[in-house]
Amino acid sequence: MRDIPRATVGRLARYLQSLAEYGRPTVSSEEIAEAVGVNAAQVRRDLSYLGHQGVRGVGYDAEHLRGAIMRELGLLETVGVAIIGVGHLGQALAGYGGFLDRGFSVTGLYDIDPDKVGQTVQGFPIRHLDLLDEDARAGLFAIAIIATPAEHAPDVLDRLGQAGVRSILNFAPAVLRPPSAVEVRNVDLSTELQILSFYRTHRH
Amino acid sequence: MRDIPRATVGRLARYLQSLAEYGRPTVSSEEIAEAVGVNAAQVRRDLSYLGHQGVRGVGYDAEHLRGAIMRELGLLETVGVAIIGVGHLGQALAGYGGFLDRGFSVTGLYDIDPDKVGQTVQGFPIRHLDLLDEDARAGLFAIAIIATPAEHAPDVLDRLGQAGVRSILNFAPAVLRPPSAVEVRNVDLSTELQILSFYRTHRH
Repeated sequence: MRDIPRATVGRLARYLQSLAEYGRPTVSSEEIAEAVGVNAAQVRRDLSYLGHQGVRGVGYDAEHLRGAIMRELGLLETVGVAIIGVGHLGQALAGYGGFLDRGFSVTGLYDIDPDKVGQTVQGFPIRHLDLLDEDARAGLFAIAIIATPAEHAPDVLDRLGQAGVRSILNFAPAVLRPPSAVEVRNVDLSTELQILSFYRTHRH
Repeated sequence: MRDIPRATVGRLARYLQSLAEYGRPTVSSEEIAEAVGVNAAQVRRDLSYLGHQGVRGVGYDAEHLRGAIMRELGLLETVGVAIIGVGHLGQALAGYGGFLDRGFSVTGLYDIDPDKVGQTVQGFPIRHLDLLDEDARAGLFAIAIIATPAEHAPDVLDRLGQAGVRSILNFAPAVLRPPSAVEVRNVDLSTELQILSFYRTHRH
């Protein structure tokens, strides 16, 4: 059950979402595959990493499967999330409705601007970036979102790494080079737009 | 040179980014592969869709290749982008620094809130959503970003589809079912966090 491939981890999160919207007690690999847009054999292979085998002609116990994926992804407890950089993007993320019912709770906002530190956004006080290390070690958050301007992102990455934070979502338009123990996922909006630009001029 | 696979389109945008940061006149498939994190054979296969073959032992002409990818992705002219929904996220996107030098220009902000319509954000006037169709047909934008609350996203998708917009980036935490002529890319922040949650509890 160890050594789950990276791509499988990504798909497990998408399977979980399809199960959240699913109403019936059993679900087939075909139904999950259809909802997520992969093939059913892939679904079965991915779920076998969790030690789950569907029953032929019946499928998987949906609630059971949901619990197993949540356990594997570490989502059985609410996960604290810190947001670094409280500009418009940081504020948008602090108020983003999609986190709440998916097991995440924003537990800290950090900035270096003296005009912002001490203010409250979406009910959260903004703390100075210098407290990041202390707060991470105290277990206030396990995932950090970098929402700073690009030029500050490498410094923030360093601070997070030193504080032992290993899961980072990066919105800054900067290429980060994390140490190997740290997982950074980049939300690169410009690359998304460039991909979309292709479809603007080409038919499917 | 037609029928470029979807996954290739996604990688071309990433190759383009690696070329933008590249200083020398020729570049090898190995160098591109290294920068982007795929294998060199994949890079050569993808670039062959553009009719580009590297010269053995020399590589590709970097500027030439950059131009070819930009042409294929429709990036030789600046692409207008509309942002639908001017909450914190919409405002963050309107001011996002990463778009400017990547060939995109925000050309319209749209909302339905009478308190917002007519106001200016980041130098852009906020227009009423009812003008979306007219503006799209007039060519003011070719890509739209949905930054509304989840419950409004399906209506916005319908309006965009009817206006002939075929490239949409969706930030709303809602599963959209676009018609086949419309390409929707979802930035699903919760799924990203769920994937990161795995790495919080597992070593690489």
